[in-house]
Amino acid sequence: MGLFSRDIKSLDDLFVHTLRDIYYAENQIVKALPDMIEKASDPGLKRGFKTHLDETQNHVARLEEVFRMHGSEVEGVDCPAIDGIIEEADDVAGEVGDKEVMDAALIAAAQAVEHYEITRYGSLIAWAKQLGRSDCAAILQRTLEDEKATDKKLTDMAESAVNLRAAS
Amino acid sequence: MGLFSRDIKSLDDLFVHTLRDIYYAENQIVKALPDMIEKASDPGLKRGFKTHLDETQNHVARLEEVFRMHGSEVEGVDCPAIDGIIEEADDVAGEVGDKEVMDAALIAAAQAVEHYEITRYGSLIAWAKQLGRSDCAAILQRTLEDEKATDKKLTDMAESAVNLRAAS
Repeated sequence: MGLFSRDIKSLDDLFVHTLRDIYYAENQIVKALPDMIEKASDPGLKRGFKTHLDETQNHVARLEEVFRMHGSEVEGVDCPAIDGIIEEADDVAGEVGDKEVMDAALIAAAQAVEHYEITRYGSLIAWAKQLGRSDCAAILQRTLEDEKATDKKLTDMAESAVNLRAAS
Repeated sequence: MGLFSRDIKSLDDLFVHTLRDIYYAENQIVKALPDMIEKASDPGLKRGFKTHLDETQNHVARLEEVFRMHGSEVEGVDCPAIDGIIEEADDVAGEVGDKEVMDAALIAAAQAVEHYEITRYGSLIAWAKQLGRSDCAAILQRTLEDEKATDKKLTDMAESAVNLRAAS
């Protein structure tokens, strides 16, 4: 949809636009995770990122299923938010000169990504329900639960071993 | 701190860098909210954004207090994440051609901002505690609670009247 063309005239249009936004975002996350896996030192964190890469590929497939169910073309739209979040993660990682501090920075970066996804899936689910598309909402809900579980695991890591080592 | 200069050598450096990141972000939010207040149609949403503008100014003041307690200079650093989130909110708002759909889009945009703040304050609090700065953590915790309460109010609006009108 073109900028300033006022193409979003209904909640259904907003739903499809946001579906395309998160589709682009999930694909950018698939591209960003290998670098995060490589930069992580803590074995648990490295393993967690690998698992999340598999999950993210599954989230992309689920979004394609929602596009099909809805009868919309599978495509992404530019998402300056996720681009900014990933750019900031790269900038900070480029400034860190200690591997344990790097792990703490990577956890924080991953949590910023998770929270972006949590908020977008939350909006999409609310809108799908109001549009009478509980079928779409149910699929999106499964991904939202994955993202919340990942965020919880990252919080546990942030509050435990990884950061304690960085502080020492 | 300069890009690629590896200036973040300790968890304390990462804490200060992230404090500067969220300080810049809070200031950008103060600048963005008046436009959101103007664009909102639902009286409850408009009032909610006004209240949040006051709260955000208070969050800026609290961050300045944390900088002083920590003995660091009060300053911001570029935060491509919040710039991207606000840019995306402007792009979407520019495409919406219906005032009730605009309210739904504004709620989603505000929730993306809230979630960015929730994740950054969460990381800052975990690090402050590990650094033995429970004094800084306690102040940051008050803001985190405000952000979570605002997100909850926005979710309630997203799931109730505002979006139901947009869907009709």
